Amino acid sequence: MTQTGILYGIGVGPGDPDLLTLKAVKALGEVDVIFAAASTKNDYSTAYAIAEPHLKKGVRVEHLGFPMTKDQDELEAAWKKNADIVSKVLNAGENAAFLTLGDPLTYSTYGYLQRTLLKMDPSFHLQAIPGITSFQAAASKIGLIMTESKESLLITSGVADPEELERQLDVADNAVILKAYKNFEDIRATLEKLRLDDKTVLVSRLGMEGESILMDIKDAPKTPHYFSLALVKKNKR
Amino acid sequence: MTQTGILYGIGVGPGDPDLLTLKAVKALGEVDVIFAAASTKNDYSTAYAIAEPHLKKGVRVEHLGFPMTKDQDELEAAWKKNADIVSKVLNAGENAAFLTLGDPLTYSTYGYLQRTLLKMDPSFHLQAIPGITSFQAAASKIGLIMTESKESLLITSGVADPEELERQLDVADNAVILKAYKNFEDIRATLEKLRLDDKTVLVSRLGMEGESILMDIKDAPKTPHYFSLALVKKNKR
Repeated sequence: MTQTGILYGIGVGPGDPDLLTLKAVKALGEVDVIFAAASTKNDYSTAYAIAEPHLKKGVRVEHLGFPMTKDQDELEAAWKKNADIVSKVLNAGENAAFLTLGDPLTYSTYGYLQRTLLKMDPSFHLQAIPGITSFQAAASKIGLIMTESKESLLITSGVADPEELERQLDVADNAVILKAYKNFEDIRATLEKLRLDDKTVLVSRLGMEGESILMDIKDAPKTPHYFSLALVKKNKR
Repeated sequence: MTQTGILYGIGVGPGDPDLLTLKAVKALGEVDVIFAAASTKNDYSTAYAIAEPHLKKGVRVEHLGFPMTKDQDELEAAWKKNADIVSKVLNAGENAAFLTLGDPLTYSTYGYLQRTLLKMDPSFHLQAIPGITSFQAAASKIGLIMTESKESLLITSGVADPEELERQLDVADNAVILKAYKNFEDIRATLEKLRLDDKTVLVSRLGMEGESILMDIKDAPKTPHYFSLALVKKNKR
Protein backbone atom coordinates (compact mmCIF):
# COMPACT_ATOMS: atom_id res chain seq x y z
CA MET A 1 0.00 0.00 0.00
CA THR A 2 1.22 3.47 -0.86
CA GLN A 3 1.76 5.74 2.11
CA THR A 4 -0.37 8.88 1.85
CA GLY A 5 1.41 12.14 1.11
CA ILE A 6 1.79 15.22 3.30
CA LEU A 7 -0.08 18.46 2.65
CA TYR A 8 1.75 21.59 3.72
CA GLY A 9 -0.42 24.65 4.33
CA ILE A 10 2.11 27.33 3.47
CA GLY A 11 1.75 30.95 4.52
CA VAL A 12 3.53 32.89 1.77
CA GLY A 13 3.40 36.18 3.66
CA PRO A 14 1.89 39.53 2.64
CA GLY A 15 3.47 40.18 -0.76
CA ASP A 16 7.26 40.37 -0.81
CA PRO A 17 8.71 36.95 -1.87
CA ASP A 18 11.57 37.61 0.58
CA LEU A 19 9.08 37.47 3.46
CA LEU A 20 8.65 33.71 3.07
CA THR A 21 10.40 31.68 5.74
CA LEU A 22 13.23 29.30 4.90
CA LYS A 23 10.95 26.49 6.04
CA ALA A 24 8.30 27.48 3.50
CA VAL A 25 10.88 27.74 0.71
CA LYS A 26 12.30 24.30 1.57
CA ALA A 27 8.84 22.72 1.52
CA LEU A 28 8.05 24.38 -1.82
CA GLY A 29 11.21 22.85 -3.26
CA GLU A 30 10.25 19.34 -2.15
CA VAL A 31 6.57 18.87 -3.00
CA ASP A 32 5.17 17.20 -6.12
CA VAL A 33 2.11 19.40 -6.51
CA ILE A 34 1.32 23.06 -5.77
CA PHE A 35 -2.28 23.99 -5.03
CA ALA A 36 -3.24 27.65 -5.39
CA ALA A 37 -6.63 29.01 -4.44
CA ALA A 38 -8.10 31.31 -7.06
CA SER A 39 -11.39 32.93 -7.85
CA THR A 40 -13.62 30.76 -10.06
CA LYS A 41 -13.84 33.76 -12.42
CA ASN A 42 -10.18 33.63 -13.40
CA ASP A 43 -7.09 31.62 -12.54
CA TYR A 44 -5.18 34.46 -10.90
CA SER A 45 -3.82 33.70 -7.43
CA THR A 46 -1.95 36.39 -5.50
CA ALA A 47 -0.42 33.72 -3.24
CA TYR A 48 0.91 31.91 -6.32
CA ALA A 49 2.45 35.09 -7.70
CA ILE A 50 4.30 35.64 -4.38
CA ALA A 51 5.57 32.06 -4.17
CA GLU A 52 6.47 31.71 -7.86
CA PRO A 53 10.17 32.71 -7.57
CA HIS A 54 10.63 29.82 -5.11
CA LEU A 55 8.95 27.01 -7.07
CA LYS A 56 10.78 24.10 -8.71
CA LYS A 57 10.89 24.39 -12.48
CA GLY A 58 8.15 22.28 -14.04
CA VAL A 59 6.37 21.50 -10.75
CA ARG A 60 2.71 20.56 -11.26
CA VAL A 61 0.39 23.45 -10.35
CA GLU A 62 -3.36 23.06 -9.82
CA HIS A 63 -5.72 25.96 -9.25
CA LEU A 64 -8.56 25.35 -6.84
CA GLY A 65 -11.64 27.39 -7.64
CA PHE A 66 -13.06 29.35 -4.74
CA PRO A 67 -16.32 31.19 -5.56
CA MET A 68 -16.68 34.75 -4.25
CA THR A 69 -20.04 34.22 -2.59
CA LYS A 70 -21.68 34.33 0.83
CA ASP A 71 -23.92 31.37 -0.03
CA GLN A 72 -22.90 28.77 2.56
CA ASP A 73 -24.06 25.76 0.50
CA GLU A 74 -22.17 26.95 -2.55
CA LEU A 75 -19.04 27.54 -0.47
CA GLU A 76 -19.22 24.13 1.17
CA ALA A 77 -19.75 22.40 -2.17
CA ALA A 78 -16.68 24.19 -3.55
CA TRP A 79 -14.54 23.15 -0.60
CA LYS A 80 -15.77 19.57 -0.81
CA LYS A 81 -14.80 19.54 -4.50
CA ASN A 82 -11.39 21.07 -3.74
CA ALA A 83 -10.76 18.64 -0.87
CA ASP A 84 -11.57 15.77 -3.25
CA ILE A 85 -8.92 17.00 -5.67
CA VAL A 86 -6.33 17.34 -2.89
CA SER A 87 -7.20 13.99 -1.29
CA LYS A 88 -6.60 12.14 -4.57
CA VAL A 89 -3.08 13.55 -4.72
CA LEU A 90 -2.37 12.65 -1.08
CA ASN A 91 -3.85 9.17 -1.46
CA ALA A 92 -1.56 8.59 -4.45
CA GLY A 93 1.36 9.16 -2.07
CA GLU A 94 2.33 12.55 -3.46
CA ASN A 95 3.30 15.49 -1.26
CA ALA A 96 1.62 18.82 -1.91
CA ALA A 97 1.57 22.45 -0.80
CA PHE A 98 -1.45 24.70 -0.53
CA LEU A 99 -0.44 28.35 -0.88
CA THR A 100 -2.14 30.99 1.18
CA LEU A 101 -1.55 34.70 1.77
CA GLY A 102 -0.17 35.71 5.16
CA ASP A 103 -0.46 32.97 7.77
CA PRO A 104 -2.35 29.69 7.13
CA LEU A 105 -4.24 29.72 10.45
CA THR A 106 -5.16 33.43 10.59
CA TYR A 107 -8.17 34.27 8.39
CA SER A 108 -7.02 31.89 5.69
CA THR A 109 -8.78 29.65 3.18
CA TYR A 110 -6.41 26.92 4.35
CA GLY A 111 -8.56 26.53 7.47
CA TYR A 112 -11.55 25.43 5.39
CA LEU A 113 -9.47 23.01 3.37
CA GLN A 114 -7.91 21.51 6.52
CA ARG A 115 -11.31 21.06 8.16
CA THR A 116 -12.88 19.47 5.08
CA LEU A 117 -9.96 17.09 4.53
CA LEU A 118 -9.90 15.94 8.15
CA LYS A 119 -13.64 15.29 8.00
CA MET A 120 -13.02 13.02 4.99
CA ASP A 121 -10.12 11.22 6.62
CA PRO A 122 -8.80 12.14 10.08
CA SER A 123 -5.56 10.29 9.35
CA PHE A 124 -4.44 12.71 6.62
CA HIS A 125 -1.06 14.19 7.40
CA LEU A 126 -1.45 17.98 7.26
CA GLN A 127 1.23 20.44 8.36
CA ALA A 128 0.81 24.20 8.49
CA ILE A 129 3.90 26.39 8.01
CA PRO A 130 3.40 29.83 9.54
CA GLY A 131 3.77 33.01 7.51
CA ILE A 132 4.20 36.74 8.12
CA THR A 133 0.82 38.48 8.27
CA SER A 134 -0.07 41.69 6.45
CA PHE A 135 -0.35 43.67 9.67
CA GLN A 136 3.14 42.66 10.78
CA ALA A 137 4.50 43.88 7.45
CA ALA A 138 2.52 47.13 7.74
CA ALA A 139 3.72 47.74 11.30
CA SER A 140 7.33 47.05 10.27
CA LYS A 141 7.05 49.42 7.34
CA ILE A 142 6.12 52.35 9.60
CA GLY A 143 7.92 51.18 12.75
CA LEU A 144 4.70 51.11 14.78
CA ILE A 145 5.11 49.22 18.05
CA MET A 146 1.96 47.12 17.95
CA THR A 147 1.99 46.02 21.57
CA GLU A 148 4.31 45.93 24.58
CA SER A 149 4.38 45.16 28.29
CA LYS A 150 0.82 44.80 29.70
CA GLU A 151 -0.93 45.98 26.55
CA SER A 152 -3.20 43.79 24.47
CA LEU A 153 -3.73 43.60 20.71
CA LEU A 154 -7.04 42.76 19.09
CA ILE A 155 -7.12 41.43 15.54
CA THR A 156 -10.41 41.64 13.74
CA SER A 157 -11.86 42.17 10.29
CA GLY A 158 -14.04 44.67 8.48
CA VAL A 159 -16.59 41.89 7.98
CA ALA A 160 -17.33 41.78 11.74
CA ASP A 161 -20.58 43.27 13.04
CA PRO A 162 -20.19 46.98 13.88
CA GLU A 163 -21.51 46.53 17.46
CA GLU A 164 -19.02 43.74 18.08
CA LEU A 165 -16.24 45.89 16.69
CA GLU A 166 -17.14 48.70 19.06
CA ARG A 167 -17.26 46.43 22.12
CA GLN A 168 -13.93 44.87 21.23
CA LEU A 169 -12.13 48.11 20.36
CA ASP A 170 -13.33 49.54 23.63
CA VAL A 171 -11.54 46.96 25.80
CA ALA A 172 -8.37 46.29 23.78
CA ASP A 173 -5.32 48.59 23.99
CA ASN A 174 -4.36 48.22 20.36
CA ALA A 175 -6.06 46.74 17.35
CA VAL A 176 -5.70 45.64 13.76
CA ILE A 177 -8.69 45.78 11.44
CA LEU A 178 -8.08 43.64 8.38
CA LYS A 179 -10.25 43.97 5.25
CA ALA A 180 -10.85 47.54 6.39
CA TYR A 181 -12.43 48.37 3.02
CA LYS A 182 -15.53 46.40 4.12
CA ASN A 183 -18.05 48.53 6.01
CA PHE A 184 -15.46 51.29 5.96
CA GLU A 185 -17.82 54.13 6.88
CA ASP A 186 -19.08 52.12 9.87
CA ILE A 187 -15.51 51.39 10.99
CA ARG A 188 -14.54 55.05 10.73
CA ALA A 189 -17.68 56.14 12.60
CA THR A 190 -16.93 53.64 15.40
CA LEU A 191 -13.34 54.87 15.67
CA GLU A 192 -14.56 58.47 15.79
CA LYS A 193 -17.09 57.61 18.50
CA LEU A 194 -14.32 56.03 20.59
CA ARG A 195 -12.03 59.00 19.81
CA LEU A 196 -9.56 56.67 18.15
CA ASP A 197 -9.66 58.08 14.61
CA ASP A 198 -6.49 60.14 15.02
CA LYS A 199 -4.81 57.10 16.58
CA THR A 200 -5.53 54.90 13.58
CA VAL A 201 -3.24 54.45 10.59
CA LEU A 202 -4.77 53.25 7.32
CA VAL A 203 -2.40 51.26 5.12
CA SER A 204 -3.47 50.46 1.57
CA ARG A 205 -1.71 48.48 -1.15
CA LEU A 206 1.37 47.90 1.00
CA GLY A 207 4.44 47.28 -1.16
CA MET A 208 2.40 47.58 -4.36
CA GLU A 209 2.01 50.35 -6.89
CA GLY A 210 -0.15 53.07 -5.41
CA GLU A 211 0.86 52.28 -1.79
CA SER A 212 -0.81 54.69 0.61
CA ILE A 213 -0.14 55.21 4.32
CA LEU A 214 -2.48 57.64 6.09
CA MET A 215 -1.39 58.40 9.64
CA ASP A 216 -4.92 59.64 10.44
CA ILE A 217 -7.87 57.62 9.14
CA LYS A 218 -9.89 60.86 8.95
CA ASP A 219 -7.95 61.62 5.75
CA ALA A 220 -9.08 58.44 4.00
CA PRO A 221 -11.46 58.39 1.03
CA LYS A 222 -14.96 56.96 1.47
CA THR A 223 -14.04 53.71 -0.21
CA PRO A 224 -10.42 52.70 0.36
CA HIS A 225 -8.71 50.11 -1.80
CA TYR A 226 -9.49 46.39 -1.42
CA PHE A 227 -6.01 45.82 0.09
CA SER A 228 -6.44 48.04 3.16
CA LEU A 229 -5.92 47.50 6.84
CA ALA A 230 -6.14 49.77 9.86
CA LEU A 231 -3.70 49.83 12.80
CA VAL A 232 -5.15 51.29 15.99
CA LYS A 233 -2.74 52.39 18.71
CA LYS A 234 -4.42 53.90 21.77
CA ASN A 235 -1.18 54.97 23.43
CA LYS A 236 0.34 56.37 20.27
CA ARG A 237 3.65 57.98 21.23
CA MET B 1 30.67 63.40 6.45
CA THR B 2 29.98 59.70 6.88
CA GLN B 3 26.42 58.64 6.19
CA THR B 4 24.85 57.01 9.24
CA GLY B 5 24.21 53.29 9.10
CA ILE B 6 20.94 51.39 9.11
CA LEU B 7 19.70 49.43 12.12
CA TYR B 8 17.57 46.41 11.26
CA GLY B 9 15.28 45.18 14.03
CA ILE B 10 15.17 41.52 13.09
CA GLY B 11 12.49 39.14 14.32
CA VAL B 12 14.24 35.76 14.41
CA GLY B 13 11.04 33.82 15.02
CA PRO B 14 10.10 31.47 17.86
CA GLY B 15 13.00 29.01 17.91
CA ASP B 16 13.54 27.04 14.69
CA PRO B 17 16.28 28.75 12.59
CA ASP B 18 14.26 27.74 9.49
CA LEU B 19 11.45 30.04 10.61
CA LEU B 20 13.50 33.15 9.79
CA THR B 21 12.39 34.92 6.64
CA LEU B 22 14.68 35.20 3.62
CA LYS B 23 14.66 38.96 4.21
CA ALA B 24 16.00 38.50 7.73
CA VAL B 25 18.68 36.09 6.55
CA LYS B 26 19.79 38.50 3.79
CA ALA B 27 20.04 41.39 6.26
CA LEU B 28 22.05 39.23 8.69
CA GLY B 29 24.49 38.47 5.90
CA GLU B 30 25.04 42.15 5.10
CA VAL B 31 25.43 43.95 8.41
CA ASP B 32 28.71 44.86 10.10
CA VAL B 33 27.56 44.39 13.69
CA ILE B 34 25.07 42.07 15.41
CA PHE B 35 23.45 43.26 18.64
CA ALA B 36 21.91 40.62 20.87
CA ALA B 37 19.91 41.46 23.98
CA ALA B 38 20.90 39.37 26.97
CA SER B 39 20.34 39.30 30.69
CA THR B 40 22.91 41.33 32.61
CA LYS B 41 23.54 38.17 34.70
CA ASN B 42 25.01 36.21 31.80
CA ASP B 43 25.68 36.70 28.10
CA TYR B 44 23.21 34.08 26.89
CA SER B 45 20.75 35.29 24.23
CA THR B 46 18.08 32.93 22.89
CA ALA B 47 17.61 35.17 19.85
CA TYR B 48 21.34 34.91 19.10
CA ALA B 49 21.27 31.12 19.37
CA ILE B 50 18.42 30.99 16.82
CA ALA B 51 20.11 33.36 14.37
CA GLU B 52 23.61 31.90 14.74
CA PRO B 53 23.45 29.46 11.77
CA HIS B 54 22.75 32.46 9.51
CA LEU B 55 25.52 34.83 10.64
CA LYS B 56 28.58 35.73 8.59
CA LYS B 57 31.75 34.11 9.88
CA GLY B 58 33.66 36.54 12.06
CA VAL B 59 30.92 39.19 12.18
CA ARG B 60 31.23 41.48 15.22
CA VAL B 61 28.74 40.56 17.94
CA GLU B 62 27.91 42.81 20.88
CA HIS B 63 25.69 41.80 23.77
CA LEU B 64 23.42 44.47 25.18
CA GLY B 65 22.69 43.98 28.87
CA PHE B 66 19.02 44.10 29.80
CA PRO B 67 18.40 43.86 33.55
CA MET B 68 15.53 41.60 34.70
CA THR B 69 13.84 44.19 36.86
CA LYS B 70 10.57 46.09 37.16
CA ASP B 71 12.37 49.23 38.35
CA GLN B 72 11.48 51.77 35.65
CA ASP B 73 14.53 54.01 36.29
CA GLU B 74 16.92 51.10 36.14
CA LEU B 75 15.30 49.90 32.90
CA GLU B 76 15.45 53.31 31.28
CA ALA B 77 19.08 53.77 32.27
CA ALA B 78 19.89 50.39 30.72
CA TRP B 79 18.15 51.28 27.47
CA LYS B 80 19.82 54.65 27.34
CA LYS B 81 23.19 52.92 27.75
CA ASN B 82 22.33 50.36 25.05
CA ALA B 83 21.06 53.05 22.67
CA ASP B 84 24.38 54.91 23.18
CA ILE B 85 26.31 51.81 22.14
CA VAL B 86 24.12 51.30 19.06
CA SER B 87 24.17 54.98 18.07
CA LYS B 88 27.97 55.04 18.02
CA VAL B 89 27.97 52.20 15.51
CA LEU B 90 25.34 53.88 13.32
CA ASN B 91 27.08 57.25 13.51
CA ALA B 92 30.29 55.58 12.33
CA GLY B 93 28.39 54.58 9.17
CA GLU B 94 28.15 50.90 10.00
CA ASN B 95 24.99 48.84 9.45
CA ALA B 96 23.75 46.72 12.33
CA ALA B 97 21.08 44.21 13.28
CA PHE B 98 19.32 43.90 16.61
CA LEU B 99 18.08 40.35 17.15
CA THR B 100 14.79 39.75 18.86
CA LEU B 101 12.61 36.67 19.46
CA GLY B 102 9.41 36.42 17.45
CA ASP B 103 8.40 39.71 15.83
CA PRO B 104 10.20 43.02 16.52
CA LEU B 105 7.02 45.04 17.06
CA THR B 106 5.01 42.53 19.10
CA TYR B 107 6.07 42.50 22.78
CA SER B 108 9.70 42.91 21.86
CA THR B 109 12.66 44.66 23.46
CA TYR B 110 13.30 46.17 20.02
CA GLY B 111 10.44 48.60 20.67
CA TYR B 112 12.31 50.15 23.62
CA LEU B 113 15.51 50.42 21.63
CA GLN B 114 13.72 52.02 18.67
CA ARG B 115 11.99 54.57 20.91
CA THR B 116 15.19 55.48 22.76
CA LEU B 117 17.23 55.84 19.58
CA LEU B 118 14.62 58.03 17.87
CA LYS B 119 14.50 60.25 20.94
CA MET B 120 18.26 60.72 20.64
CA ASP B 121 18.13 61.41 16.92
CA PRO B 122 14.89 61.27 14.91
CA SER B 123 16.89 60.99 11.68
CA PHE B 124 18.30 57.52 12.50
CA HIS B 125 17.42 55.03 9.82
CA LEU B 126 15.71 52.09 11.55
CA GLN B 127 14.01 49.25 9.72
CA ALA B 128 12.05 46.44 11.37
CA ILE B 129 11.92 43.05 9.63
CA PRO B 130 8.91 41.05 10.77
CA GLY B 131 9.23 37.58 12.27
CA ILE B 132 7.02 34.58 13.01
CA THR B 133 5.54 34.82 16.50
CA SER B 134 5.49 32.00 19.05
CA PHE B 135 1.70 31.67 18.90
CA GLN B 136 1.75 31.24 15.13
CA ALA B 137 4.28 28.44 15.51
CA ALA B 138 2.20 26.84 18.29
CA ALA B 139 -1.02 27.04 16.24
CA SER B 140 0.76 25.55 13.21
CA LYS B 141 2.16 22.72 15.30
CA ILE B 142 -1.32 21.60 16.38
CA GLY B 143 -3.24 22.80 13.31
CA LEU B 144 -5.46 25.10 15.38
CA ILE B 145 -7.37 27.59 13.23
CA MET B 146 -6.76 30.74 15.27
CA THR B 147 -9.38 32.90 13.60
CA GLU B 148 -11.62 32.95 10.51
CA SER B 149 -14.46 34.86 8.92
CA LYS B 150 -16.06 37.32 11.40
CA GLU B 151 -14.14 36.08 14.42
CA SER B 152 -11.63 38.18 16.34
CA LEU B 153 -8.37 37.24 18.01
CA LEU B 154 -7.06 38.90 21.15
CA ILE B 155 -3.37 38.75 21.97
CA THR B 156 -2.39 39.49 25.52
CA SER B 157 0.14 38.52 28.14
CA GLY B 158 0.21 36.86 31.54
CA VAL B 159 1.57 40.14 32.97
CA ALA B 160 -1.77 41.90 32.27
CA ASP B 161 -4.09 42.70 35.17
CA PRO B 162 -6.50 39.81 35.88
CA GLU B 163 -9.61 42.07 35.65
CA GLU B 164 -8.44 43.38 32.27
CA LEU B 165 -7.83 39.84 31.08
CA GLU B 166 -11.36 38.83 32.06
CA ARG B 167 -12.98 41.81 30.30
CA GLN B 168 -10.97 41.19 27.16
CA LEU B 169 -11.46 37.41 27.04
CA ASP B 170 -15.16 37.99 27.49
CA VAL B 171 -15.55 39.99 24.26
CA ALA B 172 -13.01 38.33 21.96
CA ASP B 173 -13.80 35.12 20.05
CA ASN B 174 -10.33 33.66 20.32
CA ALA B 175 -7.27 34.60 22.31
CA VAL B 176 -3.59 34.04 22.85
CA ILE B 177 -2.07 34.51 26.28
CA LEU B 178 1.68 34.86 26.04
CA LYS B 179 3.93 34.49 29.12
CA ALA B 180 1.15 32.31 30.51
CA TYR B 181 3.44 31.20 33.36
CA LYS B 182 2.95 34.63 34.97
CA ASN B 183 -0.07 34.77 37.27
CA PHE B 184 -0.93 31.30 36.02
CA GLU B 185 -3.41 30.44 38.77
CA ASP B 186 -5.27 33.72 38.10
CA ILE B 187 -5.36 33.03 34.37
CA ARG B 188 -6.71 29.53 34.90
CA ALA B 189 -9.33 30.79 37.38
CA THR B 190 -10.48 33.45 34.89
CA LEU B 191 -10.75 30.86 32.10
CA GLU B 192 -12.72 28.57 34.40
CA LYS B 193 -15.06 31.41 35.37
CA LEU B 194 -15.71 32.13 31.68
CA ARG B 195 -16.08 28.38 31.01
CA LEU B 196 -13.17 28.49 28.62
CA ASP B 197 -10.77 26.16 30.41
CA ASP B 198 -11.61 23.14 28.24
CA LYS B 199 -11.27 25.36 25.18
CA THR B 200 -7.75 26.42 26.05
CA VAL B 201 -4.59 24.65 24.93
CA LEU B 202 -1.42 25.17 26.96
CA VAL B 203 1.78 24.88 24.94
CA SER B 204 5.09 24.78 26.80
CA ARG B 205 8.66 24.59 25.50
CA LEU B 206 7.53 24.37 21.88
CA GLY B 207 10.15 22.65 19.74
CA MET B 208 12.48 22.25 22.72
CA GLU B 209 13.33 19.28 24.91
CA GLY B 210 10.40 18.62 27.24
CA GLU B 211 7.82 20.08 24.85
CA SER B 212 4.34 19.76 26.33
CA ILE B 213 0.97 20.35 24.66
CA LEU B 214 -2.05 20.11 26.95
CA MET B 215 -5.34 20.26 25.05
CA ASP B 216 -7.14 21.19 28.28
CA ILE B 217 -5.53 23.75 30.57
CA LYS B 218 -7.18 22.01 33.56
CA ASP B 219 -4.48 19.35 33.24
CA ALA B 220 -1.62 21.84 33.67
CA PRO B 221 0.62 21.94 36.74
CA LYS B 222 0.40 24.89 39.14
CA THR B 223 3.52 26.49 37.75
CA PRO B 224 4.04 25.79 34.06
CA HIS B 225 7.41 26.33 32.39
CA TYR B 226 8.69 29.84 31.62
CA PHE B 227 8.19 29.20 27.86
CA SER B 228 4.40 28.69 27.98
CA LEU B 229 1.52 30.20 26.07
CA ALA B 230 -2.20 29.52 26.03
CA LEU B 231 -4.41 29.38 22.93
CA VAL B 232 -8.10 30.00 23.60
CA LYS B 233 -10.61 28.94 20.96
CA LYS B 234 -14.23 29.62 21.92
CA ASN B 235 -15.71 27.81 18.92
CA LYS B 236 -13.38 24.84 19.15
CA ARG B 237 -14.48 22.36 16.52
